[in-house]
Amino acid sequence: MSSYTINANRVNRRIEQLSRIGKISETGVCRLALSPEDREAVDLVRAWMEEAGMTARVDAFGNLIGRLKGRDPDAPALMLGSHIDTQPYAGRFDGIVGVIGALETVQTIAEKGWVPDVPVEVVSFCDEEGCRFNKGLFGVRGMLGKLEDGELERTDKNGVTRRQALIEFGGDPERFAEDTLPPGRVSAFLELHIEQGPVLESLGAPVGLVTGISGPLWWTVDLYGFAGHAGSVPMTMRRDALVGASKVVVGLQELAIGEAGAPTVGTVGSLRVFPDSRNIIPEHVQFTVDLRDIDLERRNRLEKRLRALLETVSREHGLRYEIREDTNSEPRYCAAPIMDAIRKSAREMGPGEVPELMSGPFHDSLAMSSYCDYGMIFVRCREGISHNPKEYASPEDIAEGTELLYRTALRLCGLSGKTEG
Amino acid sequence: MSSYTINANRVNRRIEQLSRIGKISETGVCRLALSPEDREAVDLVRAWMEEAGMTARVDAFGNLIGRLKGRDPDAPALMLGSHIDTQPYAGRFDGIVGVIGALETVQTIAEKGWVPDVPVEVVSFCDEEGCRFNKGLFGVRGMLGKLEDGELERTDKNGVTRRQALIEFGGDPERFAEDTLPPGRVSAFLELHIEQGPVLESLGAPVGLVTGISGPLWWTVDLYGFAGHAGSVPMTMRRDALVGASKVVVGLQELAIGEAGAPTVGTVGSLRVFPDSRNIIPEHVQFTVDLRDIDLERRNRLEKRLRALLETVSREHGLRYEIREDTNSEPRYCAAPIMDAIRKSAREMGPGEVPELMSGPFHDSLAMSSYCDYGMIFVRCREGISHNPKEYASPEDIAEGTELLYRTALRLCGLSGKTEG
Repeated sequence: MSSYTINANRVNRRIEQLSRIGKISETGVCRLALSPEDREAVDLVRAWMEEAGMTARVDAFGNLIGRLKGRDPDAPALMLGSHIDTQPYAGRFDGIVGVIGALETVQTIAEKGWVPDVPVEVVSFCDEEGCRFNKGLFGVRGMLGKLEDGELERTDKNGVTRRQALIEFGGDPERFAEDTLPPGRVSAFLELHIEQGPVLESLGAPVGLVTGISGPLWWTVDLYGFAGHAGSVPMTMRRDALVGASKVVVGLQELAIGEAGAPTVGTVGSLRVFPDSRNIIPEHVQFTVDLRDIDLERRNRLEKRLRALLETVSREHGLRYEIREDTNSEPRYCAAPIMDAIRKSAREMGPGEVPELMSGPFHDSLAMSSYCDYGMIFVRCREGISHNPKEYASPEDIAEGTELLYRTALRLCGLSGKTEG
Repeated sequence: MSSYTINANRVNRRIEQLSRIGKISETGVCRLALSPEDREAVDLVRAWMEEAGMTARVDAFGNLIGRLKGRDPDAPALMLGSHIDTQPYAGRFDGIVGVIGALETVQTIAEKGWVPDVPVEVVSFCDEEGCRFNKGLFGVRGMLGKLEDGELERTDKNGVTRRQALIEFGGDPERFAEDTLPPGRVSAFLELHIEQGPVLESLGAPVGLVTGISGPLWWTVDLYGFAGHAGSVPMTMRRDALVGASKVVVGLQELAIGEAGAPTVGTVGSLRVFPDSRNIIPEHVQFTVDLRDIDLERRNRLEKRLRALLETVSREHGLRYEIREDTNSEPRYCAAPIMDAIRKSAREMGPGEVPELMSGPFHDSLAMSSYCDYGMIFVRCREGISHNPKEYASPEDIAEGTELLYRTALRLCGLSGKTEG
C-alpha cells in the first residue's frame, strides 16, 4: 500500500498551502464563507483545476466548478468534491481533503492522458459550514434549486446580508436560474471527508466506507415541577424538575447504548435549570435531545420508548412536560453500486475489507442525495476532533483516502479497465 | 381554641401595616436591609414597642431592641424576636411574624400589669436576609461579636459599603464593642417564624415545634469528560459529563429519600453544562449539592455514600471530578427545656400533640444557638412558598402561633403560674 497512483506529496502540499489562507494559531484556520480569505482560496484551487486540465468557473451561488471533458460531453457527469470554507476556529482538513482529493483524482487521470466516458466535475461548494449566516449547505442547495425564501436577506453579525457578500464574492443572484442543475445532469456524487469521529481510529483503519448519513431527530423538552426551599421541602413532597430531567438523560443514554452493534447515538447536549439557585428546588428544566440512527425504523422505536419514559418520569415526580420537535430528518443511504465500487477499489489496494460506518454529521452529500446517487469515503482523524485547530488527519491516511477516491472514480466514469492491481 | 389571650386583630393589623412599607405588587414587599424603607419600618415597630411599655433603642449594629423590665433587672433576659428586612421580591410574613408576635407577647403581659421575674427583650435583628451585601445574619452576629474581617467594606450593587449604609441607618461602628452581648446577658432566645416549607400544611397543623436547624453540607462539583460530535462518537466511546452528573442527581435523590422517616433532604439546585450545545457531547458539568439533616452522623454517612457514587460514576464514564466544600455546618438542636415549655403550652391550647419538625432554612436563631438556649415555633404557610409575594400565612394560624409564643414565654420568664387553662 506504500505506492499510490495519485501523487500523495502534491495532495498534502496543497492542503498545507490552503491552510495558510486564513491561518490562525499554529495549526488552525479561519476561512469564513464568502470572506476575502474564502475568495483567495477559491482562486488558488481554481488555478490548480486549470493546471489539471479542467475548465473552471465560479457559478452564481459561489460554487467553484472544474470540468474535465468526457468522451460523451453531454452524458450525465460524475461529480466529486466537498467544500473549502471553514468554521471560525477550525482545522485544515474538514472539507478541504475532499476538494483536494477530487482535484488530485482528475489531475491523475488527465496526466495519464486518459479520457473518461463521461464528464468528471470537481466542485468546491459555497458555504457548507453555515456559521456566518447561520444556515449551511448554501451552494449545494442553490445548485439544486432548494434555497428557501429570505436566505439572501440573512445577515452576518456585522449586518452584511448574504446577497451583498455573495455579489462581492463573485456570485450573482440574477443568474441563479441558469446555474440550477436540470435533472439528470449529474449521475453520481462522490465525497471524500475526514470522519469527524473516533470510529476509524478505534478500528485502526485509515479509511472507511460510509453507508449513509444518519437522520437526526432533534427535540427541545421542557419539564415543569415546583420550586421550594432546598432545606424545607421533604423529599416525598418534591416535584423536582432536575431529578426528572436527569432520569431522562440517563434513560436516553441507556436506550441508545442498549442497541448492541447498532450505530444509534442519543445525546442531551444542552440543559438549563431555572431558577438555578443552590438552595431552591429546580422548577423548570429545558434540555435538548439528539437521536440519530441509520435505521429509521429503529430510531422510531427508540423515540416511542423515550416518549414513554418522559411520561413515566413525569407521572412519578409530579411534572408536566412539553416536547418541541425541531428537526426530524430521514437517514440517507449511500447508493449500493457506489458502495460496491468503493469496496472493490479497496480490495485492490490491500487485504481485508474496508470498515463500513454511518456518518453522524451532515455533509454536502446530504443535499446531493436528493438529486442523484451518492457515496462517501471517510479518512481517519485523531481522537475524532473536528471544528477545532487540533483537528488532524495524517498525510498517509489522506493519501490512502485519495487513492481510494481515485480508484472508485475510475470505476464510475468508465475507466475501470485502467485500474491497476 | 377560638379565644386567645393575645390580641389577634392587633397582630394581623400590624403585619398589614408593616407590609405597606416597601409594598410591591398586590401582596409583595421589598424592604432591603438598611434602606430608607427598612428605617421607616424600624421606626414604626419602635413606636409600637414604646406603646407596649418597653424602652426601645437601635443598637450600633442596626438591631432594634425593646426591653420590658423584670423583677430582677439584672437577671439574664428572655429574648424574643426575628427580623423585618426582606428579600427584594418577598412577602409580608418571613421574619415579620416573629417580631410582631414577640411584641404582642410583651404587650399582652404589660397590659395585664404583670411583671416578669426576668427582663424580656424583643429584638428585630438587622439584615437577616443578606441579599444586599451578600452575607446575612449581620445584626445578630454583630451583637454576638461574630462579625468577620472586611464585612463593613462589602458593597451593594450600587457600590455603597455596608459601613456607609449602617451609619446612615443610625448604626455606629465606633460603638460595636459596647453593644456586644457579654456572656450570660440573655438566658434564652425564642423565635416565631413561618415554616417556609410544606410540612405543617401537609399535616393539617397550624403550628409546629422546631427540634433544630439542620446543618447543611454545600458542595460545588465539577465533572470533566470529553467533548465530541453528538452524531459521530459511538455511545461506547463517550465520556459524557452530563450522563455522569445526571446519575449523581438521581443518586442523591435516592440516598435522601431512602432514609425513611428521616427529615434528610438532598438537592441539586444549580447545574450548568459546557459547552451547552445541542450537537456536542457535554465536556464539563458543574453542579451544586445541598445535603441537610438534623442528625450529623446520618448526614456524614450519606456524604460518604455520595462520594462513593461520584467515584463509581466517574470511573464508569471515564470522567474526572472535583469537589469543593462551600459550607459544612453542624445541626443546632433546640434546647430541651424550651421544647418542653412549647409542648406544655400547646397542650393547654387544645388536644393533640404539636407536630415536631426540623428547620431546613437558617434563621437568626442559628446564630443565637451558639450563645444561649433557643427554641422556635413554626407557623404553617401556604404551599411552602416563601421569598415570593405569594407567601401566605392565615391570620388564624398567625394568631395560634403568637398565642403559643406568648404562653411559652410566660413559662420562661417566671410567669407560668399566670397561664390559663
